[in-house]
Amino acid sequence: MKKFQIITLFPEMFDKVLNSSMLWKAQKDGLVEFNLINLRDFGLGPRKTVDDTPYGGGDGMLLRIEPLVAALEFAKKRSKNAKILLMSPAETVWSQSMARDYASSTADYIIICGHYEGFDARIEQFVDAKISLGQFVLTGGEIPAMALIDSIVRLIPGVLGGEKSAEIESYSDGGALEFPQYTRPEEFRDMKVPAVLLSGNHAEIERWRVKNTTK
Amino acid sequence: MKKFQIITLFPEMFDKVLNSSMLWKAQKDGLVEFNLINLRDFGLGPRKTVDDTPYGGGDGMLLRIEPLVAALEFAKKRSKNAKILLMSPAETVWSQSMARDYASSTADYIIICGHYEGFDARIEQFVDAKISLGQFVLTGGEIPAMALIDSIVRLIPGVLGGEKSAEIESYSDGGALEFPQYTRPEEFRDMKVPAVLLSGNHAEIERWRVKNTTK
Repeated sequence: MKKFQIITLFPEMFDKVLNSSMLWKAQKDGLVEFNLINLRDFGLGPRKTVDDTPYGGGDGMLLRIEPLVAALEFAKKRSKNAKILLMSPAETVWSQSMARDYASSTADYIIICGHYEGFDARIEQFVDAKISLGQFVLTGGEIPAMALIDSIVRLIPGVLGGEKSAEIESYSDGGALEFPQYTRPEEFRDMKVPAVLLSGNHAEIERWRVKNTTK
Repeated sequence: MKKFQIITLFPEMFDKVLNSSMLWKAQKDGLVEFNLINLRDFGLGPRKTVDDTPYGGGDGMLLRIEPLVAALEFAKKRSKNAKILLMSPAETVWSQSMARDYASSTADYIIICGHYEGFDARIEQFVDAKISLGQFVLTGGEIPAMALIDSIVRLIPGVLGGEKSAEIESYSDGGALEFPQYTRPEEFRDMKVPAVLLSGNHAEIERWRVKNTTK
């Protein structure tokens, strides 16, 4: 069973996301386990401080190193072979081939989600990979962590009903391979399903799909 | 006030995400409004069916066109100038420059999240843009929609405290510009904050930051 431990100041954001649909079923089937770790629990002093202003000046607050490392070490105890991932903008951009590697590896994962403007850079000494979702800025690492988890878990053997479902939307590393699909009704407001798809001629259907596949 | 209407089979996934942190504050300040529309409410027949098998064969189920269009038309009535966005793999990949355009436009947005294997392709006649988060496959459009919303809302004027906070993590279209940042303590397990950042010499700090900026 693959364990995901998520370090965040907003654990409640994950509740319904991890407990709906495919991710819920994967837990129920004993294929994955999710643990939320509230960074606030590792805050400093009576006010449980987790952030402070940057040295040298600048806007915003940074997450301090001590609570982050304390939370990490707590998580590491539960999962000794875990890879530590830091969600961070401007880093390696997540891809389907990475999702495949992460799903097939035997490693567990500890995912650090930042909020506020960023992290004390010394956290980088403690992480195995820094991962970004893409070329856009988000308020925190929570939504990217959800995407990362979803894309990995659905590729773990046994999670999707038919093994083929995960593969059909097959991504080469260059992009997704998709053809237009149609279901009932045959006609909707003058828009008809292409006749070939109703023909029952499997060779022609296959040709049509290949021809209409966009990359 | 910018309105976001989200059409989904899993509205509960959005509850805590839209009602935490920055997105919650933007609503409280009257800058944005979120409406969740449950696609199931527009399902067909007594079982409220929303999906069916693909013509021509294939794995999985597709969302049917009638419930999707009925939900869209319901949303359109509340927001006549809304742009209709379809979260879909293998399409235009979301970027910070798109987030900027979407935030500065006066349009409202209706976002269609798919689940299951895909959509009846005729839905494309009804949408203004098809958007993907990146080169990876997710179970549904819900998490990508959250990312899209977060990245847009934080750029709406007034949402972030200092106007500068959104800009400091400035993305050129090529990538993010970031330099390492540090906060207290000066020393943690033998790892010290670079001395220049403690010097108070602003010109030197600026030079150090430029030199250490990674793209």
